[in-house]
Amino acid sequence: MALVVQKYGGSSVADADCVKRVAQRIVATKQAGNDVVVVVSAMGDTTDELIDLAQEVSPLPPARELDMLLTAGERISMAVLAMAIANLGHEAKSFTGSQAGVITDSSHGKAKIIDVTPGRLKSALEDGSICIVAGFQGVSQDTKDITTLGRGGSDTTAVALAAALNADVCEIYTDVDGVFTADPRIVPAAQQIPRISYEEMLELAASGAKILHLRCVEYARRYNIPIHVRSSFSQREGTWVVASSEETEVEHAIISGVAHDRSQAKITVVGVPDKVGEAAAIFRLLAEAEINLDMVVQNVSAASTGKTDISFTLPASDGQAALTALNKVQDGIGFESLRFDDRIGKISLVGAGMRAHPGVSATLFGAIADAGVNIEMISTSEIRISVIVDQDDVDTAVQAVHRAFDLDADQVEAVVYGGTGR
Amino acid sequence: MALVVQKYGGSSVADADCVKRVAQRIVATKQAGNDVVVVVSAMGDTTDELIDLAQEVSPLPPARELDMLLTAGERISMAVLAMAIANLGHEAKSFTGSQAGVITDSSHGKAKIIDVTPGRLKSALEDGSICIVAGFQGVSQDTKDITTLGRGGSDTTAVALAAALNADVCEIYTDVDGVFTADPRIVPAAQQIPRISYEEMLELAASGAKILHLRCVEYARRYNIPIHVRSSFSQREGTWVVASSEETEVEHAIISGVAHDRSQAKITVVGVPDKVGEAAAIFRLLAEAEINLDMVVQNVSAASTGKTDISFTLPASDGQAALTALNKVQDGIGFESLRFDDRIGKISLVGAGMRAHPGVSATLFGAIADAGVNIEMISTSEIRISVIVDQDDVDTAVQAVHRAFDLDADQVEAVVYGGTGR
Repeated sequence: MALVVQKYGGSSVADADCVKRVAQRIVATKQAGNDVVVVVSAMGDTTDELIDLAQEVSPLPPARELDMLLTAGERISMAVLAMAIANLGHEAKSFTGSQAGVITDSSHGKAKIIDVTPGRLKSALEDGSICIVAGFQGVSQDTKDITTLGRGGSDTTAVALAAALNADVCEIYTDVDGVFTADPRIVPAAQQIPRISYEEMLELAASGAKILHLRCVEYARRYNIPIHVRSSFSQREGTWVVASSEETEVEHAIISGVAHDRSQAKITVVGVPDKVGEAAAIFRLLAEAEINLDMVVQNVSAASTGKTDISFTLPASDGQAALTALNKVQDGIGFESLRFDDRIGKISLVGAGMRAHPGVSATLFGAIADAGVNIEMISTSEIRISVIVDQDDVDTAVQAVHRAFDLDADQVEAVVYGGTGR
Repeated sequence: MALVVQKYGGSSVADADCVKRVAQRIVATKQAGNDVVVVVSAMGDTTDELIDLAQEVSPLPPARELDMLLTAGERISMAVLAMAIANLGHEAKSFTGSQAGVITDSSHGKAKIIDVTPGRLKSALEDGSICIVAGFQGVSQDTKDITTLGRGGSDTTAVALAAALNADVCEIYTDVDGVFTADPRIVPAAQQIPRISYEEMLELAASGAKILHLRCVEYARRYNIPIHVRSSFSQREGTWVVASSEETEVEHAIISGVAHDRSQAKITVVGVPDKVGEAAAIFRLLAEAEINLDMVVQNVSAASTGKTDISFTLPASDGQAALTALNKVQDGIGFESLRFDDRIGKISLVGAGMRAHPGVSATLFGAIADAGVNIEMISTSEIRISVIVDQDDVDTAVQAVHRAFDLDADQVEAVVYGGTGR
């Protein structure tokens, strides 16, 4: 008998009919002989509606109370899902994050899980119950207040419970068939990836692929929990996210996929005195403002002026805070001006195979250049190359790169089914 | 500095504007120098909407899960109310029933409070916070599951917290100005009662007056917590429900008010053998089915047949269960048939003064007879007389009784303002 943790997102439980269909899938998993723990998000637009309600009474609601409010969403979905399962003749019990033992720090709205003590879930499983757990929420170790985990929180809840319960698999249900080589809305020929390593999935998630959240993949990698990303609307196999091994490496494609991200902005600090410590002062300041930088480029200073420009990218939503913080220290640091550009896009090519294939960057830059797109910034990791382009060029560049690396479905089908002629 | 517990019902917090107005009232109480604990119900129709949602997935949802679902309603209202108070510049913290220390038994949907351990509320009050507590809910001592208290639960939560915190007053806010001598929709001349004893309020509540629930008044009486029932839409003084004292007794009206109840039904067991123990067997059976009887009448048996009829009243909603239970034992007990009548109404006259005024029942029966209404059953307590009439006659009988005991407003105003001429 296996222990399966399943996570269903808001679109999978959008209304009563969806809830009933999900209940049937859960019961089928149970009837196949598995113990089942289900993590569920709030139904459909519930969370947005609750945020709207909060805005009606307060423009800046206290974070503790906003968490209290938002956690009502999963409370509703989990209870209704447990009812739907009971209606199919199986015992189901719902548990809040607190009841399920999801212990967090006290950072309301973006709490981190610091411990999971699933004693009540274990007892319920031993009694033969299906456990339904509220995603996205926990209880603070220090204050005993209710917390939420922030974006991707329900995925993280599922993986954390899978780890604490030593589950065999964590199934993440969504409205697509798995992880694709690119966003199918931009690249219709994008293909589903059957198997991908944690490392590659981390790079894809960090690069804008929205299907799994970074924290969830990090958690799965740390505890070696296999994630199976699949559609709640079909029975098809989805994408397995697993530890890389030599075996998988050998059969692995050079490139896993192309991710893109339109949510970043670029700030350029113009005319920074080229002295030791000036750049460090700028980045320390931004770190203190809790702003996460992504790419950083420092130009070679002009010998004539002894000044340089420093550019960096960051989430566009942090742009105003960063500009405010920088403006305050303009005199102290002595830079000339600030430039802000939120009309940028980032394109990232991810693949464990690129470690062993030195030609990858040349092919990438060539494909983007051939498509007539200008590259503004470049950054690389061991298994990823990212470039910044104009936001209007994102689709063109993604399509060109996807084609250049033979990721389009037709070409791959040619390889697989085209016989020995090639 | 006083400690004030305030309770706001669903209609007082029906939407964001209502919540903001309630927040202002709470802040005014705080600014007047009081510590404030607020108990709040779910907003407007939230609870009904959640019940509808449950019905969509299951005709008979498990009670544990229904409680989990319904408690989302107060979670929303309390968080939003805390936000609205924070927006006025005062610190407010919301607490679930469980967090507030409302410990109950495990009877989902109708749990009883067995202990209140408000440690977190006390700490928050010491820190200067206003405490907002979810009404209607608690946590089971045995299973640690979330429970709801059933009808009138938020009033009971408020009084229980007032008792545990040793509060100076428990203010119950509603959409009318307090307790009236009769339902103003039936008797437009009904008057607000400024002061009433726990005992009289208990009788009124048990007799169908809906303004305060029986359990809440019982709780207040046991712990001697003064209740102030008042409108959330005005600043007027409402009705104080307090311990009776000789002082209040002297100045007290003979009659406090007239209550009515259309939710009862009457069952007659026809042709019961007039042997020792037959009636007891019937009532034991109904007790085992957890059916609460109200009035009971056993006719004198006819000497010729040795048989008698037993009639009793009960909540109409329990009618089917009672008939089913009785049908099962028809052969064993040997009664002839069952009659069921849910077209009845109960009218109750309540007043501590009737103890010392023996003419009350004569006036009551006379007034009803003069109004041309037939009395079907009668029951009395020390401070209450109730009669069963045809449901269509309820309004007529209530109006007649109210007038007969000089409770109509014009007459009383004549007493107060009419000078010494009378």
